[in-house]
Amino acid sequence: MTSSWVPGADTSPYTIAHLPYGVFSRPGEPPRAGARIGDHVLDLAPVLHDEVFTSGTLNDFLARGRTAWRDTRRRIQRLLSAGAREASANRAATEPHLIPLDQVRMHLPVEIGDYVDFYASLEHATNLGRMFRPDAEPLTPNWRHLPVGYHGRSGTVVVSGTPVTRPRGQRLPGPGQAPVLGPSRKLDIEAELGFVVGAGTRLGDSAGAFDDHVFGVALVNDWSARDIQSWEYVPLGPFLGKSFATSMSAWITPLEALEAARVPGRAQDPEPLDYLRRREPWGLDLTLEVRLNGEPISAPPYREMYWTPDQMLAHMTVNGAVLRTGDLFASGTVSGAEPSQRGSLIEISWNGTETIRLADGRDRTFLEDGDTVTITASAPGPDGSRIVLGEVTGTILPSPA
Amino acid sequence: MTSSWVPGADTSPYTIAHLPYGVFSRPGEPPRAGARIGDHVLDLAPVLHDEVFTSGTLNDFLARGRTAWRDTRRRIQRLLSAGAREASANRAATEPHLIPLDQVRMHLPVEIGDYVDFYASLEHATNLGRMFRPDAEPLTPNWRHLPVGYHGRSGTVVVSGTPVTRPRGQRLPGPGQAPVLGPSRKLDIEAELGFVVGAGTRLGDSAGAFDDHVFGVALVNDWSARDIQSWEYVPLGPFLGKSFATSMSAWITPLEALEAARVPGRAQDPEPLDYLRRREPWGLDLTLEVRLNGEPISAPPYREMYWTPDQMLAHMTVNGAVLRTGDLFASGTVSGAEPSQRGSLIEISWNGTETIRLADGRDRTFLEDGDTVTITASAPGPDGSRIVLGEVTGTILPSPA
Repeated sequence: MTSSWVPGADTSPYTIAHLPYGVFSRPGEPPRAGARIGDHVLDLAPVLHDEVFTSGTLNDFLARGRTAWRDTRRRIQRLLSAGAREASANRAATEPHLIPLDQVRMHLPVEIGDYVDFYASLEHATNLGRMFRPDAEPLTPNWRHLPVGYHGRSGTVVVSGTPVTRPRGQRLPGPGQAPVLGPSRKLDIEAELGFVVGAGTRLGDSAGAFDDHVFGVALVNDWSARDIQSWEYVPLGPFLGKSFATSMSAWITPLEALEAARVPGRAQDPEPLDYLRRREPWGLDLTLEVRLNGEPISAPPYREMYWTPDQMLAHMTVNGAVLRTGDLFASGTVSGAEPSQRGSLIEISWNGTETIRLADGRDRTFLEDGDTVTITASAPGPDGSRIVLGEVTGTILPSPA
Repeated sequence: MTSSWVPGADTSPYTIAHLPYGVFSRPGEPPRAGARIGDHVLDLAPVLHDEVFTSGTLNDFLARGRTAWRDTRRRIQRLLSAGAREASANRAATEPHLIPLDQVRMHLPVEIGDYVDFYASLEHATNLGRMFRPDAEPLTPNWRHLPVGYHGRSGTVVVSGTPVTRPRGQRLPGPGQAPVLGPSRKLDIEAELGFVVGAGTRLGDSAGAFDDHVFGVALVNDWSARDIQSWEYVPLGPFLGKSFATSMSAWITPLEALEAARVPGRAQDPEPLDYLRRREPWGLDLTLEVRLNGEPISAPPYREMYWTPDQMLAHMTVNGAVLRTGDLFASGTVSGAEPSQRGSLIEISWNGTETIRLADGRDRTFLEDGDTVTITASAPGPDGSRIVLGEVTGTILPSPA
C-alpha cells in the first residue's frame, strides 16, 4: 500500500487507500468539501484549484461522473503520497490545507434527491415477517423475485451526530383497542449500508453499469418506531414510523476504495429475471458493528445480503424512473443468520420479549432516552489492510412534552 | 367580483379572483414566474420589481410565507383591476408584461422536496381493497383512525403535458406463475388534488395552522401500473408501480382563491384523535373532471373525501418529520360513491372486467399507447363565479423496444 506523508495516516483507519469525501466547516466559515486522511480533513478547493468543492454539498462534483471521480482521487493520492517524486513540494503546498478533525464540524455531505430503502437481507425479512405476520409465510411471494423497496423521506436524512427526537405517533395499546397518540415505546435502529448516486439517468431510461452511476457508500441508521410502524404500515407501507429521522455517516467512501472488498454476492434461488442478473461482483465484504452506549451489541455481515446493490439499482430504474445526483438508496437492515449478527433491536430482543443486558448492568429491549447508537464498518483494503467506514451515530432525545 | 382590464379575463375561467402561479419561458429565455390571467401570463419580476420571480422555480417566493403570499396577490390584483383609481397608469405599466399563453412553454412550478401520496377517499380505498384483497375486509383496521399515506418518488414529478412512457416491470402472468418482465398491461390514472407546501417546519416540530404552511393546490395525476403494483406492494407499499411518473398541473392555485370553496369536510366515525381534529373547514368543494382522449369519463367530487388536507398535514408531521418548501402531498385518488365519480380506471373498469365504451366506438379498460388523459377541476369562486383549476394532461408513449 502506498504510504502518505501525513503524520499518523498510515497507521490510522483512514489511509491514503481510503480517502472518503465529506463536507465540513470551521467556525464562522461556510461548509465546503474535504477528503479525510488520518485525523485530518484535506480542504479540497484550494489544493485542487476547483470551485466545485466550495459549494457546500458534493452534488456538483458527483454530477461530473466516473472519470472525474477517478481522476480526482488519483490527484489527491498523488498529493498525499510519500513516494511521489515531487512529494516534498506536494507536502509544502498541501499541508497548510490539512485541518485537524477536531477543529471542524461535519455537515450532510449531499443534498439528497430521492431516498429509497430496500429490504435485502433474507434473515431480516424473515425475522420481521415472523413478528409482524405470525400467521403467514414470513417471506411474501415476491421477495425472492425482486428486491423489495419503498421510498423514504429525504427531507429528514440527517448527518451523523444529529440528535434524534423520539417521535410521537399513533400506536395500539393492545389488540382490538383504540389507538392512542404518544411517544413511541419501541424506538429502534436499522443498521444499513447506503449508496450515493453520482451520475443520474434521463427520465424513461434504465440505469447502466452500477459504477457508472453510484459514487460511493455511506453508513445509514434508518431509525424506526416499531409500534407506529406496525399499526400504520398496511396497506401502503412504512410512513411515520420511519420518516422522523434517517442518519447517514458524514463520510462517503468511494466505490474505488472498496475494490478489495468486492465479492460475488450470495447465491439466489430462483435465478432472478435477466434484468436483475449480476454482471459484475458487487457484493461487498463489509462487516458492520453496532454499539449501544459504547458497547458492541451486533456485527452484521453485509456480504451475506441476498440482493446486491447492482440488483437494487437495476430494479429501481427498470420502469424508467429518473435517477438524480444525490439520490440515496439503502440496503435495508443488514442481518446475518446468527443472533449476534442482527442489525435491529426488534430482532435482537425478538420484539421486546428478550432483554439485552448491557455491561453496566442495565437492560434494554428498545431504545431509551439518552441512548447513543453508533454504527461502524470495516472491509478489506489493499495488501491486507482494512478500510474503516466513517461512523453514523445518534443520541435519543425525549419527545417534546 | 372585481373586473380586470385584461381583455377577455372576466369571461374566462382565469379571472382576477383566481390568479394561479406558474413558471414559464419564451423561446430562448430562461424560465421565470408568472401569474395567469385570462389567456395571458403576467411576467411577475418586472411588474413587481422582485428578483425572486426570476429564479426558475417558485420555491424562494413560497418560502417567504403567508403574509408575503397575501401581499403579493393583492398587489397583482390591484395592478390588473379595472376599478382601481390608478387603473390606466397600471395598465400602461403592466400590459407590456402580459404574454399570450400560446407564446410560452410551462415548466414544473416548484422544485419538489418530498412527495407524499395519501389514500383519503373512503370509496377509493374500499374499491381497491375489494379488488386487491378480495378475501379480507376492504378497509384495513387503521384506515378510519389515520390518513394512510406513503412517500412517492419526487424526482419523477413532471409538469402537465410531459409525455408518459409506459413503464416496464415485473408482473405475474397468472396466479402461481413465475413473474415476467414487460410493459405494464394495466396502466392507469389516479385523479388527485395536490397541496404545495410553502413554509416548512424545523425538524422535530409539528406543523401549525394549515394555511400557514400550504401555499396552494395543483391537480395531480398519479399514474399507476396496476399489474406491477399488485405484485410488488406487499409488505412495504407501492414502489415501481407508481415511481415512473407523477404529473402535476403547471398552475398552482393559491388557497386564498379557494375561500368560497371551503366546506367542513365529511363526517368521520369514529372521531379521530385530537391531533387530527379539524380546527377550521378545509374540505374543498372542488369537482374534478377526467377526460380520456377528450371525452369526459368521470367527475370525482373532492368534497366527499373522508380525510381533509389539514388532517393530512397534521398527521404527516406529528412525528416531527421536517416539512420543506416545495414538498407536495396529494389526496390519493378522488372517488365518489357513484360509478360516474370514480377517479381511476381500475375502479371504472372494475379491474378490467367492464369495458368503457368511448364515443369513437373503441373500448378501454386500462390505457393504450397514444391515449391522452386530461384532468381539470372547478370550484365556487366569489359572487357565484367559478374557479377553474389548471389542467393536468399527459399522453402515453409506448415502452422502449
